Amino acid sequence: MGNLQFTEQPLSEWMNRDGNESNIVISTRVRIARNLAEFPFPILATNQQSEEVLSQFEQVLSDERMQPFGQLHPIELDDLDDLDKQVLVEKHLISPSLVTESRNGAAFISDDESLSIMVNEEDHLRIQCLYPGLQVKEAWEKASAVDDIFEDHVDYAFDDKRGYLTSCPTNVGTGLRASVMIHLPALALTSQIGRILSAVTQVGLAVRGIYGEGSETVGNLFQISNQITLGQNESEIIDNLYGVVVQIIEHEKAAREKLLSDSRIRIMDRIMRSYGILCYSEIIDSKEAAQRLSDVRLGVDLGFVNVPFHALNELNVMTQPGFLQKRQGGNMSPGERDIYRAKVIREHLKDNLQ
Amino acid sequence: MGNLQFTEQPLSEWMNRDGNESNIVISTRVRIARNLAEFPFPILATNQQSEEVLSQFEQVLSDERMQPFGQLHPIELDDLDDLDKQVLVEKHLISPSLVTESRNGAAFISDDESLSIMVNEEDHLRIQCLYPGLQVKEAWEKASAVDDIFEDHVDYAFDDKRGYLTSCPTNVGTGLRASVMIHLPALALTSQIGRILSAVTQVGLAVRGIYGEGSETVGNLFQISNQITLGQNESEIIDNLYGVVVQIIEHEKAAREKLLSDSRIRIMDRIMRSYGILCYSEIIDSKEAAQRLSDVRLGVDLGFVNVPFHALNELNVMTQPGFLQKRQGGNMSPGERDIYRAKVIREHLKDNLQ
Repeated sequence: MGNLQFTEQPLSEWMNRDGNESNIVISTRVRIARNLAEFPFPILATNQQSEEVLSQFEQVLSDERMQPFGQLHPIELDDLDDLDKQVLVEKHLISPSLVTESRNGAAFISDDESLSIMVNEEDHLRIQCLYPGLQVKEAWEKASAVDDIFEDHVDYAFDDKRGYLTSCPTNVGTGLRASVMIHLPALALTSQIGRILSAVTQVGLAVRGIYGEGSETVGNLFQISNQITLGQNESEIIDNLYGVVVQIIEHEKAAREKLLSDSRIRIMDRIMRSYGILCYSEIIDSKEAAQRLSDVRLGVDLGFVNVPFHALNELNVMTQPGFLQKRQGGNMSPGERDIYRAKVIREHLKDNLQ
Repeated sequence: MGNLQFTEQPLSEWMNRDGNESNIVISTRVRIARNLAEFPFPILATNQQSEEVLSQFEQVLSDERMQPFGQLHPIELDDLDDLDKQVLVEKHLISPSLVTESRNGAAFISDDESLSIMVNEEDHLRIQCLYPGLQVKEAWEKASAVDDIFEDHVDYAFDDKRGYLTSCPTNVGTGLRASVMIHLPALALTSQIGRILSAVTQVGLAVRGIYGEGSETVGNLFQISNQITLGQNESEIIDNLYGVVVQIIEHEKAAREKLLSDSRIRIMDRIMRSYGILCYSEIIDSKEAAQRLSDVRLGVDLGFVNVPFHALNELNVMTQPGFLQKRQGGNMSPGERDIYRAKVIREHLKDNLQ
């Protein structure tokens, strides 16, 4: 237990694979929430019950049908130090509430980090699959396949009328949350983002910043996910999310075209200044870093600047507080982090000169 | 006439020589104003009289004692197009009023551009000597030597009580204006500049921005000159200016030390960001360019960034409106200049990577 290979590298292996629409959609995530019928929800479970829950799930992992998903590394939260926990959250490999609220919380993470099975989080079981780009259906199918294997071994809490029962009522029914992390700089620059995101929420989807619920959006990165888990079946949820995201992508593409035709030199100036500042600054806070990385990401797509997308994806994680401190080897004040963040960005962009 | 070699290169040859305190003082200039006794001041002279004035001075140039100053190239203002005139002003080789107010205005400029003799400016004769760094006495001695040669050939307007007579009363007496172009970024950053410059004006010196009288100061470059020409002899004027400038230099050095000890990383961040922006921006106006070049110049002195001083001196001229348009080959709108200025800066910094 306590294998920390996942906190050494900023970029999960799965992020290096090809994804659809990857100039706009960073990644897709699907998670399924499940609970065991014979145990109280984690918040009410005794220590012993939580351990039994974990033990039941561990046994499922030896099912040979799990082999295609790669080796799953067990991680017990209590064995990790705070920085490792924070990095796992920053990489979206575990949820913030597994860190802050769970007792006997654990996770099983695959070698390529595309599959993370959390135990004793808000629910007994959360199966999470991550894919690069826009691959909602693919992520859902994989999570569903894992879910089927578990269902053959354990007794899920299920109600014929309400569907899968979950600790929080917002997850009851399918227990399914599908989300897409999407980069919308041109909609932001052309002041259309408010209108678009408002429309998104009106069709039953939720919009959040990428780090934590309700956190301020930075770097024009948005997480769009289904709000509803009850009253729609899984296919409807997946299709609805996919369809709306495709429309948002079209709007973002149109906005990028408009920027290029209406104010090419102005947008190029903005992007290149951000690149120059990232290459040379000595102090940079996380909000500014995210905004300037967003500019550069747009610049790569528009052909103004040549930085590999994987380097930008890496920097999105590398500039987070936890990863910075993990890399430096200890706790740092916010001021110290701003200095170290600038150094990490300078060096990483230099290493990725093309 | 109309030799335009002087408008091709941004940097005068004399600027490449060593100068004292050249990390703070850009250059020293001394000019002597003289008039011929038998002619009315230029503003009242007829065309024929102005031509006779020019003719008298031309004959002086063949005096063999002028040879050490190098070949003097004659320039008649009426033969120049507007951009050439503007570039000569931007390089401080001629005065703005020679361009805007003179009739039959002319100049004789030495090969290395360190000596410029203006005819039919506000006064019949203005002898101007330029030196790199802080060399007030040297500039004065050279201008005085040229003045002596002229005085052997022509009859200067001179009054035993008031001294040399000039068109504007502010120049009566010695006709001497000595000035130093000085870069004071640390005094500006530490908010001491107002106090220091206010003290300077109280000891009979004037402070201006470097381009034109009363122009807004940009890029922390100041021209400090004697205000008084009457009631002090030449040595007193030169010694007073020199002494005050030496004190200002000490204050600036102390302020730089203080910046380094109190806020090294903050000032380094500011400097490196400015360098990054200059290397990458696509649009930059003259005021921002001057400020960022000032930051970089400070950074060179503090050892943060490696750009040769001559490249920064070149850019100070290359980013001016006249030089930009001359180089591009025609008139440009301010917006077009901002784009071309950014390109010129990017390319020049790239050419001067060390």
